[in-house]
Amino acid sequence: MASPATAAVENLPQVLLLLHPAAFTIFGEEHFTSPKFRFLKAYESSLPLDEFLAANARSVRALLVSAATVVGAGILDLLPELRVIVTTSAGLDQLDLAECRRRGIRIASAGDIYSADVADCAVGLLIDVLRKISASNRYVKNGFWATKGDYPLGSKQLRGKRIGIVGLGRIGLQVAKRLQQGFGCTVSYNSRKKKNPDQVPYPFYQDVRELAANSDALILCCGLTEQTRHAVDKEVLAALGKAGVIVNVARGAVVDEKEMVRCLVEGEIAGAGLDVFEDEPVVPKELMELDNVVLSPHSAVLTRESMMELARLVVGNLEAFFSNEPLLSEYEDD
Amino acid sequence: MASPATAAVENLPQVLLLLHPAAFTIFGEEHFTSPKFRFLKAYESSLPLDEFLAANARSVRALLVSAATVVGAGILDLLPELRVIVTTSAGLDQLDLAECRRRGIRIASAGDIYSADVADCAVGLLIDVLRKISASNRYVKNGFWATKGDYPLGSKQLRGKRIGIVGLGRIGLQVAKRLQQGFGCTVSYNSRKKKNPDQVPYPFYQDVRELAANSDALILCCGLTEQTRHAVDKEVLAALGKAGVIVNVARGAVVDEKEMVRCLVEGEIAGAGLDVFEDEPVVPKELMELDNVVLSPHSAVLTRESMMELARLVVGNLEAFFSNEPLLSEYEDD
Repeated sequence: MASPATAAVENLPQVLLLLHPAAFTIFGEEHFTSPKFRFLKAYESSLPLDEFLAANARSVRALLVSAATVVGAGILDLLPELRVIVTTSAGLDQLDLAECRRRGIRIASAGDIYSADVADCAVGLLIDVLRKISASNRYVKNGFWATKGDYPLGSKQLRGKRIGIVGLGRIGLQVAKRLQQGFGCTVSYNSRKKKNPDQVPYPFYQDVRELAANSDALILCCGLTEQTRHAVDKEVLAALGKAGVIVNVARGAVVDEKEMVRCLVEGEIAGAGLDVFEDEPVVPKELMELDNVVLSPHSAVLTRESMMELARLVVGNLEAFFSNEPLLSEYEDD
Repeated sequence: MASPATAAVENLPQVLLLLHPAAFTIFGEEHFTSPKFRFLKAYESSLPLDEFLAANARSVRALLVSAATVVGAGILDLLPELRVIVTTSAGLDQLDLAECRRRGIRIASAGDIYSADVADCAVGLLIDVLRKISASNRYVKNGFWATKGDYPLGSKQLRGKRIGIVGLGRIGLQVAKRLQQGFGCTVSYNSRKKKNPDQVPYPFYQDVRELAANSDALILCCGLTEQTRHAVDKEVLAALGKAGVIVNVARGAVVDEKEMVRCLVEGEIAGAGLDVFEDEPVVPKELMELDNVVLSPHSAVLTRESMMELARLVVGNLEAFFSNEPLLSEYEDD
């Protein structure tokens, strides 16, 4: 017979998990628990997902997902009582937003908590590529400074560089602020629509190719949508040119990765700082050997501080939902 | 018999070089030549330096030096007509300034041309250490992301970090601006004297140890003087503590390097980003193996743009001197 404590836990509302969230591995599941709900972990069952959901999740009202958990109509059909999806990601490209809207399912995302960290990472990758920090670190650590002499001149100054930001949302705006105010770069941008010039003084380019032609570095900060998929294609890379640099902290598929790899290998662009890839965690092997390419493992959002804030927000959103209170970070379709 | 062209060159005033300047190797000697002077290269002679100077340099009025060329009373005694020293460095610690002053020798330094690049490099090293960019780049390039899974959480957010700047001159002020305005850090500083608080709003600490005790990262931007030599010693490192980070873009000897290496190896401080070392190009071998240490080969000033500006300034100062015009970047003792 269940103890009273166990019975009390069993009476808690359930939060469904389809895949093991990366944040549990990286930061620890204990930070995401609450006395007000319990997790129903589909990934711990040996049943096929549809059988598991049919048997266990027909009354589930809340779903917690990471960036990797793709949720389309097929899954939603198996969760007739679902009313809220809480994501550990800021991006929502893994969710079928139209289906969620049609079914009245609310969405709470990680909101703005990652923006500063992602912007910092974008700027860090840009400095690293232009100033060759990782490459010269390798040079010193391999002992070449003492044996081969000074590292060859190849660094470029940040001041005066023309930065093209693709996607001037919360992250893009923070990247713009750091680079223009802090480092003396000049910023232009492409976005779904032109911002109010009273609030956003940077020149707007309707066309990514034209932005690239007028930029020394393109920094990709947009969400992944059908419009932005492969927005940086062969023509854009050609417009960026031999001296141009790509920084991607958006999603791998915003770039035609195969084409970008070819351009990097053949010297048709000058370098890249990449936090995201089309087929993570698989990274094209050509990139591993290039000195002018700096890679990070989709870790732009991963600081201790942002993970603590994420845990607070995930637990807070779920507790608010079960208490019929306003969500802390509800996504509003625009 | 000399041709008229050769004779014309031979009549040009001479600029003495004691050592081969690194900028000639890195950027190319041709950028530093002028129709108004010619170089007298002591380093190309097989004679001992004193014999060479006694035989060839008694009438030399101008000397061009790099950071590596130590100039004291002994050398100056051999150059009785010397009236100007032009340096390719911003720092002047290689020169005996008191002796130069006593003999009425003017000094033209590289002035402010490197400040932005050095500040960029300091910020780049700080982001790299806090956000583990070089370390995670290695992780990805070694193929570990796909085989070992997510990179362990260890990155720290920049926002809110307490930055202690040692030496709030032109470089330190630019570091402060980038980090406080751009990244939301808070800045304090130590300097020879407190700045006017109307112009410099950051809190001042008279004592480096106290600054370290109130900082998450110390960024060293001061000149090397007898006062700043080993200013970051065992006590300062202990005050910085286990979570603290050192960034050094000043001179290696500002830190007690042996003690810093011990602290890094034993985990008594969290990490370091180092562009300078006590015995360059020799780098303590313990640093080569540490994942939390990012090294660059005294390359903070080395961008194409700053080298072009340096060449313009060196040639301009020497041409101005020989034309009895004001030097472009004369050092004023304060």
